Amino acid sequence: MTVAKAVEQLLPEKRLVYFGDLARTPYGSKSPETIRKYALQNTEFLLKQGAKLVIVACNSAASVASDLLEEKFSAPIFEVITPAIDAALQVTSDCRIGIIGTRATIKSNIYESKIAALNRSAKVFSQPCPLLVPLVEEGWLDKRETKMVLRRYLHPLKHRGIDTLVLGCTHYPLLKHLIAPRIGKRVNVIDSSTAVANVVKNYLQNNPELEKSLSVGGESKYYVSDVTDAARLTAQRIFGRKIELTLANVESGGI
Amino acid sequence: MTVAKAVEQLLPEKRLVYFGDLARTPYGSKSPETIRKYALQNTEFLLKQGAKLVIVACNSAASVASDLLEEKFSAPIFEVITPAIDAALQVTSDCRIGIIGTRATIKSNIYESKIAALNRSAKVFSQPCPLLVPLVEEGWLDKRETKMVLRRYLHPLKHRGIDTLVLGCTHYPLLKHLIAPRIGKRVNVIDSSTAVANVVKNYLQNNPELEKSLSVGGESKYYVSDVTDAARLTAQRIFGRKIELTLANVESGGI
Repeated sequence: MTVAKAVEQLLPEKRLVYFGDLARTPYGSKSPETIRKYALQNTEFLLKQGAKLVIVACNSAASVASDLLEEKFSAPIFEVITPAIDAALQVTSDCRIGIIGTRATIKSNIYESKIAALNRSAKVFSQPCPLLVPLVEEGWLDKRETKMVLRRYLHPLKHRGIDTLVLGCTHYPLLKHLIAPRIGKRVNVIDSSTAVANVVKNYLQNNPELEKSLSVGGESKYYVSDVTDAARLTAQRIFGRKIELTLANVESGGI
Repeated sequence: MTVAKAVEQLLPEKRLVYFGDLARTPYGSKSPETIRKYALQNTEFLLKQGAKLVIVACNSAASVASDLLEEKFSAPIFEVITPAIDAALQVTSDCRIGIIGTRATIKSNIYESKIAALNRSAKVFSQPCPLLVPLVEEGWLDKRETKMVLRRYLHPLKHRGIDTLVLGCTHYPLLKHLIAPRIGKRVNVIDSSTAVANVVKNYLQNNPELEKSLSVGGESKYYVSDVTDAARLTAQRIFGRKIELTLANVESGGI
């Protein structure tokens, strides 16, 4: 949802088709095989709803499934990792980059290998932060416990003297106000939501035909595989307005 | 797994068929409709594997789906809530009973209504504790943050002067060593895992034909819908030995 919001802000006239797999989240603690299966089902669903380009707006899915999706589908597939890396390499001063993410994302080593391919001298320090997703989903955005958990997770990265930190999970922008002061004022904090929205905007500027086809009217639609009060509340918090969530069953491909 | 372990200890000669839906957990933050769908698929799977009685070893599933399962299937269905309530009503002195559980369990009001049906003068105080499942799954069983979160959750119950506390989630027995001293020495702590294992044992004593049919040899089997290192570690922690986890796909009913 943080990515959908960032895209909406940069490309307000485009129609979004959002899908949130709330019936099976969180992905970050699941195996690559399971995440790949879900990512395939979800992408097929979005394309069936008329999506003409797809953003894999979840680092765990992007880290293990985006190659597979690019292979399987002809529509342009964007993901949140490469744009965040490009943004990090642009702003880093000492090439000491910290990555925080779910267990699945960090275990995939995708940030390390992609950064190494672009800049061999960059040093990457990774830290899995599995409790941040449940804390965000609980709305504990300013609680003392959240600050303590963050301190524990960020301590090793601080110790390594990173100058740039990538928020490698689309839940983490909601904790940026706690992360930034704790990792230190000197450290650039990269939000992959904004980064991928910028990349998509540039891509559309260079592909006017696709850009034009996306301008065809209609309302944005927000599908989810499960509807709960907590999800409604999170949507309202992120978008700053009420969002109508429509139930969709992607296992069988229908709504 | 805490229930499987308790059953194994009480009925060591019986063959267990376990299924853990790790690809879709946690259930406690999901809607009743989604939990019901999953509970149906899981029960069908267990019966296909030859199970002759089924224990719904999850309070969230039991709270919204056990009536449906009893209706749909002819095999005896046990669940963790009724045995825990019976145990609580047996030991309570002042009939002031606290319940902790997931959001789904607490929202269902199942403990309140079942207790009211058995003892109209009992007072029930409920507290959703959504962060305890992720903390247990992370293995943060003795961390300062876990103690702080527990203190926050238990505070309102302590304030109500409960004399008995039901651990209304099968993850919570792993935190019993932190919960018991924090809620107070005077308070009985009821573990639904042990309670349901006792009920099943009694049922088999009263149903010797079923009991005999369960004694037919073969190994216990532990199926899961996703295999991760964390799951292997949790299984080893609970059972005190290595458990071979077999991947099963219950969406389509096969393995």
